[in-house]
Amino acid sequence: MSRVYNFCAGPCTLPLPVLEAVRDELVDFRGTGMSLIELSHRSPAYEDVHEEAIASFRQVFGVPEDFEVLFLQGGATLLFSTVPMNLVAEGEPVAYVRSGTWGRTAEQDAAVFADAYPAWDGAPHGYTRMPRVDELEIRPGTRYLHVTSNETIEGIRVSAFPDVGVPLVADMSSDYLSRPIPWERFDLVYGGAQKNLGPAGLAVVVVRRERLGEPPRPLGSYLRFDLHAERRSLLNTPPMFAIYVMGKVLAWIRSMGGVEAMERRAAERSGRIYAAIDTSDGFYRSPVDRADRSHMNVVFRLPTEELEAAFLRAAEAEGLVNLKGHRSVGGIRASVYNAMPDEGVDALVTFMRAFAEQRA
Amino acid sequence: MSRVYNFCAGPCTLPLPVLEAVRDELVDFRGTGMSLIELSHRSPAYEDVHEEAIASFRQVFGVPEDFEVLFLQGGATLLFSTVPMNLVAEGEPVAYVRSGTWGRTAEQDAAVFADAYPAWDGAPHGYTRMPRVDELEIRPGTRYLHVTSNETIEGIRVSAFPDVGVPLVADMSSDYLSRPIPWERFDLVYGGAQKNLGPAGLAVVVVRRERLGEPPRPLGSYLRFDLHAERRSLLNTPPMFAIYVMGKVLAWIRSMGGVEAMERRAAERSGRIYAAIDTSDGFYRSPVDRADRSHMNVVFRLPTEELEAAFLRAAEAEGLVNLKGHRSVGGIRASVYNAMPDEGVDALVTFMRAFAEQRA
Repeated sequence: MSRVYNFCAGPCTLPLPVLEAVRDELVDFRGTGMSLIELSHRSPAYEDVHEEAIASFRQVFGVPEDFEVLFLQGGATLLFSTVPMNLVAEGEPVAYVRSGTWGRTAEQDAAVFADAYPAWDGAPHGYTRMPRVDELEIRPGTRYLHVTSNETIEGIRVSAFPDVGVPLVADMSSDYLSRPIPWERFDLVYGGAQKNLGPAGLAVVVVRRERLGEPPRPLGSYLRFDLHAERRSLLNTPPMFAIYVMGKVLAWIRSMGGVEAMERRAAERSGRIYAAIDTSDGFYRSPVDRADRSHMNVVFRLPTEELEAAFLRAAEAEGLVNLKGHRSVGGIRASVYNAMPDEGVDALVTFMRAFAEQRA
Repeated sequence: MSRVYNFCAGPCTLPLPVLEAVRDELVDFRGTGMSLIELSHRSPAYEDVHEEAIASFRQVFGVPEDFEVLFLQGGATLLFSTVPMNLVAEGEPVAYVRSGTWGRTAEQDAAVFADAYPAWDGAPHGYTRMPRVDELEIRPGTRYLHVTSNETIEGIRVSAFPDVGVPLVADMSSDYLSRPIPWERFDLVYGGAQKNLGPAGLAVVVVRRERLGEPPRPLGSYLRFDLHAERRSLLNTPPMFAIYVMGKVLAWIRSMGGVEAMERRAAERSGRIYAAIDTSDGFYRSPVDRADRSHMNVVFRLPTEELEAAFLRAAEAEGLVNLKGHRSVGGIRASVYNAMPDEGVDALVTFMRAFAEQRA
């Protein structure tokens, strides 16, 4: 089979030149006579890869000097626990925006380690929009406000990060490095790599250095951000292959114009799909508020579930794959992460118009 | 450069046919039109890889029916925390053998979550041997005895797992699947994949199912073994690439005759290196007790540090690389994990004899 356009919500499509470069040096990494996955994590050959990935991440995302970049394992799911473990003491109040599946999950795990409360709950709105700033209820003494910058399943995003007088903590798993952020409002940003950055098995934390003292509770070594920072994410053997691939993806993002270009591109590309929805005379329907539509995960419905099934079958036959919506919301979801080629978006939009014309 | 013999203590050499197969399907995984690292972890193509890896691990290691196999992230280092977190309540006594660097580190992390105490301390012996069974001091009420089955840095191993009336928990990171174990004595076995099993970024836990009830303390979701077991290690996105490569390594181990063959091979191969040491008229010297010599990491010294440096330079010139001992113990360390070809051991032994003859 020739290469498909993979609209999966993650893990997902990666730039083809990255995959080809990984393949070409898979057995012999840069003349070492070894594969990268056979290198010692203390070897100069790997240390170059590691340091270059840290430097590239900082450069591409515009990370300020007073933040540390950590490469960790366990995904955002482990970070749902370790972020509150490291930032606050037991019983301290932390606010969570219940914006969708991931915002809710993050809050549930945080509640084990802190007094996590909802600053806003999207349930009455069916998780179809983000809160307005004046809807956020922040209690006195709150240590941070947690937001999910993009809800992968529901297809909504924080269009502007709120300024609410407490530091922000953001799970950016599904829109990492697709947009610049106002660093001055943030204490910590985190996310899994497996959407915009590289393969599964790596999470990246960016944390304000002054939050990294002795942790506010006793913790085992792997759970401590301060130790990972001190050891430059080499406290133990890191997920070397994922870091290596991410380094190549970061170089590719740079070659494409950086995060600002990714942001423009994401707005333009998702915009074309939303336009195909909005101009379909109601054949396609976006269930979410226009202002909060995700630029990464375009969720839409067709008139019936039968038509949705037919849409998925016909799309797959044309090499447009993994367009099925998450089982919890149904319908269609087109994820157009950074690495999706423009041609994939063109093909999808053309297909959508043709399918609507035939079946409407 | 042509392929070298890589004696690194981990990450380390992998079977060349495995690397070649990974390379060949890196860009297009089995006709999907996608790379394995672009697949959804919920896709049938990946689920096959995942289930096959679980089944192979069970089969190759002879895991009994009443144990679960979990694929986790964070390495053995995170497990130093999560094993006591999941198995015991705060304040409950757990015994640790301080056999070397890793035994000590495991105990330090466990002490945060339980009443961890040393059942035996190798410090007075310079960590050159393991305890005899009658030297182990187990307090009443102890929930488990933790052993490090092979101390990677010091080069010693547990030659026979003790029967002490409390369940064993073993960190087998550096001799995983190089020997069968008496499952009836164990509650849990764990280890990082990056020595005998595959790339870094994956840890495998084998845990007795009856230990997997509601955890004895409140825990965030990623920290809970019971949830990982329920979800067959698909609670969140797993380290798919590492699991996939491990699957291929497991098939390779099977093709070589399984764990019993690995055990015989390890005894024979390390035995040849120890013989080169013991018959060198004192030029080479093993610092550890003969009965506890590791079959994976052969540690030895030369008469002077200058000779050791010359040995490392000359070995590297012949394509025998990563033979330097850990900085904390110095000297030479030849790690001969499962995937080291016999020819690598032959080449090392030949080199050792020639070097001793020239320089003695």
